[in-house]
Amino acid sequence: MASWVCPGNNSEFSIDVLPYGVFSTDKLDARIGVAIGEYILDMKVLSYEGIFSAIDFDASVLEQNTLNAFASLGSKVRQQVRARIQQLLATNTSHADELRDNPRTEEALVKMSEASLHLPMAIGDYTDFFVGIHHARNCSSILRPGVGLHPNYLSQPIGYHGRSSSVVISKTPIRRPKGQFFRDGERTFGLSQKVDFEVEFAAFISHGNEFGTSISVDDAEDHIFGFVLLNDWSARDIQSWESAPLGPFNGKNFATTISPWIVPPEALKSFCQYPSLQEDDLLPYLRGKRQASVYDIPIQVSLKDQVGDYRVFECNTKHVVFSFAQMIAHHTAGGCPLRTGDLIATGTLSGPSRHEVGSLLEASRNGSEPYELSAEETEKHETTRTFLLDGDIVCFRAPGFGSCDGQILSN
Amino acid sequence: MASWVCPGNNSEFSIDVLPYGVFSTDKLDARIGVAIGEYILDMKVLSYEGIFSAIDFDASVLEQNTLNAFASLGSKVRQQVRARIQQLLATNTSHADELRDNPRTEEALVKMSEASLHLPMAIGDYTDFFVGIHHARNCSSILRPGVGLHPNYLSQPIGYHGRSSSVVISKTPIRRPKGQFFRDGERTFGLSQKVDFEVEFAAFISHGNEFGTSISVDDAEDHIFGFVLLNDWSARDIQSWESAPLGPFNGKNFATTISPWIVPPEALKSFCQYPSLQEDDLLPYLRGKRQASVYDIPIQVSLKDQVGDYRVFECNTKHVVFSFAQMIAHHTAGGCPLRTGDLIATGTLSGPSRHEVGSLLEASRNGSEPYELSAEETEKHETTRTFLLDGDIVCFRAPGFGSCDGQILSN
Repeated sequence: MASWVCPGNNSEFSIDVLPYGVFSTDKLDARIGVAIGEYILDMKVLSYEGIFSAIDFDASVLEQNTLNAFASLGSKVRQQVRARIQQLLATNTSHADELRDNPRTEEALVKMSEASLHLPMAIGDYTDFFVGIHHARNCSSILRPGVGLHPNYLSQPIGYHGRSSSVVISKTPIRRPKGQFFRDGERTFGLSQKVDFEVEFAAFISHGNEFGTSISVDDAEDHIFGFVLLNDWSARDIQSWESAPLGPFNGKNFATTISPWIVPPEALKSFCQYPSLQEDDLLPYLRGKRQASVYDIPIQVSLKDQVGDYRVFECNTKHVVFSFAQMIAHHTAGGCPLRTGDLIATGTLSGPSRHEVGSLLEASRNGSEPYELSAEETEKHETTRTFLLDGDIVCFRAPGFGSCDGQILSN
Repeated sequence: MASWVCPGNNSEFSIDVLPYGVFSTDKLDARIGVAIGEYILDMKVLSYEGIFSAIDFDASVLEQNTLNAFASLGSKVRQQVRARIQQLLATNTSHADELRDNPRTEEALVKMSEASLHLPMAIGDYTDFFVGIHHARNCSSILRPGVGLHPNYLSQPIGYHGRSSSVVISKTPIRRPKGQFFRDGERTFGLSQKVDFEVEFAAFISHGNEFGTSISVDDAEDHIFGFVLLNDWSARDIQSWESAPLGPFNGKNFATTISPWIVPPEALKSFCQYPSLQEDDLLPYLRGKRQASVYDIPIQVSLKDQVGDYRVFECNTKHVVFSFAQMIAHHTAGGCPLRTGDLIATGTLSGPSRHEVGSLLEASRNGSEPYELSAEETEKHETTRTFLLDGDIVCFRAPGFGSCDGQILSN
């Protein structure tokens, strides 16, 4: 399919993607939008104009400043809204009078370059899993050499509760955190010397489950509204000193960045694959009747400093031992309620080689082996990193998601 | 002080306490109330009647169905509102025409027995610390004998992020969770056989801090709206199998119960004491200029089954190695934002003897030594527990907080 908005069809935001976000401009208050080419389609304007009146739902949910109410409606309504938007945007649309040639909706296409993007959903709880198996193996080999994976690792999606208050939108600057850590044989408080990133993929929950009930692995995919890229910023010195016995806390909770555009599952069907890395003898609550899906989406990681723009890693969302359906089934197995807007992340998506890992911890073996960064093609410069320096801008990119960027500021 | 509402002055809800909650009745929608004697003072009615018009704030925050907006206003306004309520309720009030003898406010006192109580605040993030030092020592001796406290334990408040979606109000039934655990040499999925409780004390945050900033230990107490009792229900078999390396997850996230009444710091001044259990050489960010406070409040723990009503433990909020001010300073040291309505709990408040611990894990040494429960004075029955049985009702009580109760249901 092609769209009259981006005729060359060479945009990451093609008519086949149509991700949802929340934007504002100098003149417009925060509202829901859909990315198409170099534009954002203003859902508030379309709703006011009755564009969705033939669909059986309260279209005023599209006039709000978060996607929560819309997400909670269920996948049938969302698919109808998506089909309606595709109908209006298609090159060969037979509905040109409703949008393309309609003077009353001519302000509905807002230039992306003039918009500010905001957190797309009000996030209740944020959960971070650890299902990237190469990452788990790397961490084990670096931090606990000779011990191997924990014995529980392959039989359940291991995860922890993250901090929802510090989830921020791409381009939010990240201050180098202060904290307590152990250095030169004594505990100290100061600026973290091991600020790192983690490349992750995450799902927003559409509708949840009641307290005391669970979601079966077969039903779980229907509870996903869409996907974003996620950077789980980490301060390794703080994290390693605090984590026994209750896991990461201040080493992670200073910031988590997400990409601005939520890509719906419908747009990612062709990237779906059967899980290949998991055990055959999973317990039944994780197996289900149909195989839960895993995605095969490359994520490019780059780093900019004052001198250059460097390729760092190429990760992939497929390097996981459990699918989102399995994570959701496990998360709710004991009766824990998920709610609309909850965010569930994979953990770091490292691949098998050093250039495919998803953190500097892994690439530099916890700072002991500086990792060489090669400049983008147009430049000649090379540099190295063990951990991030003040001023570094870290960028994750996958087509359709927008960029998941953040710069480390001095503190 | 005494009040004309409860002349005998023998209620836990005396005029010196005046905790805040949210209630409804068959006729009244959910709204803010203040407990006094056997009644709840309806803040919505008082606000409508202009009772607070002499105080410089938007009194409509008292007409909402959570306390968040009111809590966020700052302690000066809250102290004025509290003083005004005390003025109206005092036995020797010179303002009887405004409440006691005012026909337009006669419905402002609602019988507590006719009210349902609700979660008093919309909780953004819930953090559970581990600052009960006797509990930490007991866990260490039971689960990792011979190893002792983790080396980080005395130098920082260790904590983890809990699950806010499963925080429920007292009397909400708790289904025995299912989950994955290791039994008889193999992993299995089924009903937890080690359901336990943990006696904790928790603070609600009044106003928070911006992303990337911190709250100093000297300023931290001003960010506390008030306190509740908290039961951190735990499934020990699920917890022990999942916790390495990222800490508790499904072993805790199925339910956390809080008492219904939020007791303001003003009511607890006489229970405040200097911390006695902490190290002298704390890092400066945890020391501050004035000593952070710790509370000395006994919490009675009882258990009811079909046969009897048993005394179980007597815990105390003083058995902690860090104060709430220190927990808040540590939590925000790296820039993690707290928000109005966030909940921060101490962890289990065990004392030094077996009858003062705050969990069955400790009392039964992880199920190996059944713990004897003696009946309340009016009964003769005795029984034992290793962990909780279906039907058991666990009750925590401290005057002014109401009860923090929950019954384990079969699943």
